[in-house]
Amino acid sequence: MRYAIKIGYDGSHFNGFAMQPDKKTVEGEILKRLLKTGIIKSRRESRFQYAARTDKGVHAFGNVIALDAKANPVKVLSEMENIWCTGYATVKEGFNPRHAKAKIYRYYLINEGYNIKEMEKAAKLFEGRHDFSSFSRRDARNPIREIYSVRLHAGKIIKIDFLAPSFLWNQVRRITAAIIAIGMEKASIESIKRALNGERINFGIAKAGNLVLLDVVYEGLSFEKITPDEIFLRREIYKDALDYIMNATHSRNVGLTKPVE
Amino acid sequence: MRYAIKIGYDGSHFNGFAMQPDKKTVEGEILKRLLKTGIIKSRRESRFQYAARTDKGVHAFGNVIALDAKANPVKVLSEMENIWCTGYATVKEGFNPRHAKAKIYRYYLINEGYNIKEMEKAAKLFEGRHDFSSFSRRDARNPIREIYSVRLHAGKIIKIDFLAPSFLWNQVRRITAAIIAIGMEKASIESIKRALNGERINFGIAKAGNLVLLDVVYEGLSFEKITPDEIFLRREIYKDALDYIMNATHSRNVGLTKPVE
Repeated sequence: MRYAIKIGYDGSHFNGFAMQPDKKTVEGEILKRLLKTGIIKSRRESRFQYAARTDKGVHAFGNVIALDAKANPVKVLSEMENIWCTGYATVKEGFNPRHAKAKIYRYYLINEGYNIKEMEKAAKLFEGRHDFSSFSRRDARNPIREIYSVRLHAGKIIKIDFLAPSFLWNQVRRITAAIIAIGMEKASIESIKRALNGERINFGIAKAGNLVLLDVVYEGLSFEKITPDEIFLRREIYKDALDYIMNATHSRNVGLTKPVE
Repeated sequence: MRYAIKIGYDGSHFNGFAMQPDKKTVEGEILKRLLKTGIIKSRRESRFQYAARTDKGVHAFGNVIALDAKANPVKVLSEMENIWCTGYATVKEGFNPRHAKAKIYRYYLINEGYNIKEMEKAAKLFEGRHDFSSFSRRDARNPIREIYSVRLHAGKIIKIDFLAPSFLWNQVRRITAAIIAIGMEKASIESIKRALNGERINFGIAKAGNLVLLDVVYEGLSFEKITPDEIFLRREIYKDALDYIMNATHSRNVGLTKPVE
């Protein structure tokens, strides 16, 4: 049976997704676990594949791996540290998770008084088909790409959502850096237009730790959802952290039975 | 000038608080940063001290360090990874953060159908002055201790708050393990009573990663609050993670402009 598994991870604990000798990576840890528990005999035999090779530091809720296995791998993959299963499906023999309908990335940014209107304008420029040479790290792939949408949600935290069938290396982080530069009024809308028309301009690269691969979507494939306990706990811990740090009147918060004096 | 700084950290990135040779610890990273930036010349000269020596894996929002420095150390300590400043105060010459009015720990637990009524009864037993020999790892200190309160908040996540002037080594985690055993009906209220009266019973130890040192409180000392951006971001990321995984209708969530087909 071939399985597709949605994988979430806290990227700060890994040297990126892709396996590397002597380095702790998401793929490396997953394969180690699958081999150790006998779920697969070898990478090759299981035809192990993945959707996105996220950079060092980048997080995910819904990256996708696929593998042939005799038993559902969800259980053994749910007992890892900083890696979680967030869904699964059984898929056809030839399913390759790289061939997605869309990948969705979200970039998080503390709003430090950016010019949001201009950032929204900038974001729009990246939608559609363009030459992304200035907005990616060069590799063998064609830099002419289509992005379905770049949407900005502004609040105390700005979120920028990117939707495309695939992304080039560092593409999201380089586009984000350009949008941030616009928000800080350190770059012009014109310069982005020129860069999208083939001129090489370096807008820098936004840091990895604020980027999340939200999901990978496939035609006609829906996943059974899994909500990992660890994500519940972390949400609650950071919610409490904020409440606590911002409002701390300590005796109230801890339900003090006896006055401390 | 002597400063007291509230320190938060993600314990999963460190080998505990206390410095150890060749291991990444919270104290070690803080001292390295203070020395490197010239905020202090040496540990001894700065009379560096701390409130709580949390175990490997335990998190904190409000542990407290104290040090003599010519300039406020908050800025340089706010640029670290997985360590945050959550408050600061200037203090008297002789201030030693160990001498606290109270320390507050919170344990987080997914509610998997525990017997909450019994857990609440068990929690109550630990309040007051008892022999905690069965509920701590033996060291030179007197095992007769007072705990002001042990309070249980039950929801989808159970939180157990501990308030005491000080805690023994592993005390919170060992008490929590006993309360969990009661909740699972694997131990009796009677056995806890016997253990608190001097009989040696091992109830096990709850895992470190779910424990947070919420705060350390001092008589007549209030801190300027700082809310680290990183905690805002993490709260938002894990909030989105849950919303996303639980409700994911992807096209809605990402504000799809163009139908993906």
